[in-house]
Amino acid sequence: MTFEEAADALVAVGQAFHARGWAPATSGNYSARIDDGRIAITVSGAHKGRMTRGDIMLLDAGDPRRPSAETALHLAVYRAFPEVRSVLHSHAAISVGLGRASGDDWTIAGHELLKALPGIDTHDTSVAIPIVENSQDIAAIERAVMPRLGNSPAFMIRGHGMYGWGRSIAEAERVIEALEWLAEAELAERRFRA
Amino acid sequence: MTFEEAADALVAVGQAFHARGWAPATSGNYSARIDDGRIAITVSGAHKGRMTRGDIMLLDAGDPRRPSAETALHLAVYRAFPEVRSVLHSHAAISVGLGRASGDDWTIAGHELLKALPGIDTHDTSVAIPIVENSQDIAAIERAVMPRLGNSPAFMIRGHGMYGWGRSIAEAERVIEALEWLAEAELAERRFRA
Amino acid sequence: MTFEEAADALVAVGQAFHARGWAPATSGNYSARIDDGRIAITVSGAHKGRMTRGDIMLLDAGDPRRPSAETALHLAVYRAFPEVRSVLHSHAAISVGLGRASGDDWTIAGHELLKALPGIDTHDTSVAIPIVENSQDIAAIERAVMPRLGNSPAFMIRGHGMYGWGRSIAEAERVIEALEWLAEAELAERRFRA
Amino acid sequence: MTFEEAADALVAVGQAFHARGWAPATSGNYSARIDDGRIAITVSGAHKGRMTRGDIMLLDAGDPRRPSAETALHLAVYRAFPEVRSVLHSHAAISVGLGRASGDDWTIAGHELLKALPGIDTHDTSVAIPIVENSQDIAAIERAVMPRLGNSPAFMIRGHGMYGWGRSIAEAERVIEALEWLAEAELAERRFRA
Repeated sequence: MTFEEAADALVAVGQAFHARGWAPATSGNYSARIDDGRIAITVSGAHKGRMTRGDIMLLDAGDPRRPSAETALHLAVYRAFPEVRSVLHSHAAISVGLGRASGDDWTIAGHELLKALPGIDTHDTSVAIPIVENSQDIAAIERAVMPRLGNSPAFMIRGHGMYGWGRSIAEAERVIEALEWLAEAELAERRFRA
Repeated sequence: MTFEEAADALVAVGQAFHARGWAPATSGNYSARIDDGRIAITVSGAHKGRMTRGDIMLLDAGDPRRPSAETALHLAVYRAFPEVRSVLHSHAAISVGLGRASGDDWTIAGHELLKALPGIDTHDTSVAIPIVENSQDIAAIERAVMPRLGNSPAFMIRGHGMYGWGRSIAEAERVIEALEWLAEAELAERRFRA
Repeated sequence: MTFEEAADALVAVGQAFHARGWAPATSGNYSARIDDGRIAITVSGAHKGRMTRGDIMLLDAGDPRRPSAETALHLAVYRAFPEVRSVLHSHAAISVGLGRASGDDWTIAGHELLKALPGIDTHDTSVAIPIVENSQDIAAIERAVMPRLGNSPAFMIRGHGMYGWGRSIAEAERVIEALEWLAEAELAERRFRA
Repeated sequence: MTFEEAADALVAVGQAFHARGWAPATSGNYSARIDDGRIAITVSGAHKGRMTRGDIMLLDAGDPRRPSAETALHLAVYRAFPEVRSVLHSHAAISVGLGRASGDDWTIAGHELLKALPGIDTHDTSVAIPIVENSQDIAAIERAVMPRLGNSPAFMIRGHGMYGWGRSIAEAERVIEALEWLAEAELAERRFRA
């Protein structure tokens, strides 16, 4: 994946996420590890539904632009998982509501869509998505969440949103798409049970 | 219906279903019986909103590509109903939530939209959509659901989604569109009653 | 308004309504009174999001096509209100849920959006939208609802949907858009109060 | 910002807001302060999703067209905040439902998205959005709300909608997008807690 390929794909992710309400008010940030190992990432403050290739920057390239404050979380994921090529951060109203109403994790069980997560090949299992407290100290979030990942390809920051990743931009997008859908399904299920 | 006509129509179904959130994270699968009796079906793992004709394969044509694991369920429907020309599988958050919160079937009564289902010409009736347990053994799902269909042009797999069919791709799409809308209306009704 | 102008505008209504989920599974029907007094109306069974001018027919023109079964309700409105030029029938999950959970009418009070209804120029009022039982006998629906309209530019058929009208297609569309939005707002309000 | 630039941007706001259901039935109004200090504003009664440059007028230019009745509220914001260049009024079902179910304000706390509001750089704070009663006397709304703004870049009129502003049209749009999203997240959170 070249920088240009990564940038175009991240622009498309922004359009898709914003259209679904997962990137309100310039929130969210998306990155990819390109072929030479460097990280392409969204610049801070871009409207995610209206990005161009110029809203994606390359870290460690002397670029004077400022990447998102959460860049350190992206880097932590890339360090921990050498096979990961993309990290995406969504900001959906339903999963943020779920996160604020939940405890230390969100356990998903018995859903066919669990099979959309890497390494899972049966619905008859469960995955616990860690939920950590938000902080202005990004390093504190990193220390809190990285030891708690287990088999989860994602984590949530309370009142903030979802981070998910994969071995390609498409796989990372599939992880986010599955989890945001599962939050919607969980909400529907609870209302039908009420 | 030629293979090309079927493929183009199934690609359009994927775009429509994905846009509505009924095909998250590559989930779902769609098929059609073409003029020579063979079955055109989505390949496994395709992003349903971004398919091309190349993501549709023909069963029994020596094609090395792998169809969806649920292909056997499509074939069971075609065997049971010679007039059926299309089977579509949606994966909507609201109906999956309904299915997880319900018992052995979902009974729909008194809705004008029941008349969108083949063979029903009054709102003053009811249809029971069977809900069966999910399984990694597709044959087990088939054995559980096929004897329970009654007058239903669809069934649900718990935590997994909806299968619907018709004498054309358009009719199968109408069945799915009606049932997913009815699940939304049922949720709204329950909330207004609460 | 010529037939061609009416047909193009009704096709556009169908696209807008279907995109919002107000015309599932070919449901709904739309009409307009053209300059010579005749009624242009959607043919029965058309997919409302994919209509062309050919899916609109002219009543009393010897056209062999079949209009919607609810044509008599459109005609009743045109007879009762000589100034009305368009009648639109939407089929939205939220308002249908509201109608099934409500009694003989839906009273809307204190909403600024009431001013979108013809003849209302303050939010500080209320409008009662009549809700009548569904029936396969369209004349029975007509007899039940027409005497109950009062100042309402719309009525609901339980489990079926909303009829609204206006002195132009744009005004009828505004009535439907206002009422479907008000149903959504009412649902949100009740959930915030719960 | 010239009049033409302002008009084109406000037309785009209308398309975006209408597509999300924030501008039903011609509701809403949008304005911008152009370079010469005059105010460009939407004319009364325009369909917000289908505006052209001709639906934006310039106040104090001898234009015979009628601006929205709420123009005085826009002007009050421009007088109070010299740096403000745009005021936008949305009309979303969820936040209107929240406003009708709430008391004198809506307090938002602990959300990362608070940082989308001007002058806020931590999630660890709260903002109280004032909610005032609707009135046909716009001056009465103005007198009620302006003294109560505090650090809020927005206010709500009960049963009517949201006003938000910023130093550019983009910033005002970001404020509205953040607040409408936060209303959705608040609704989701309450339902998950129920």
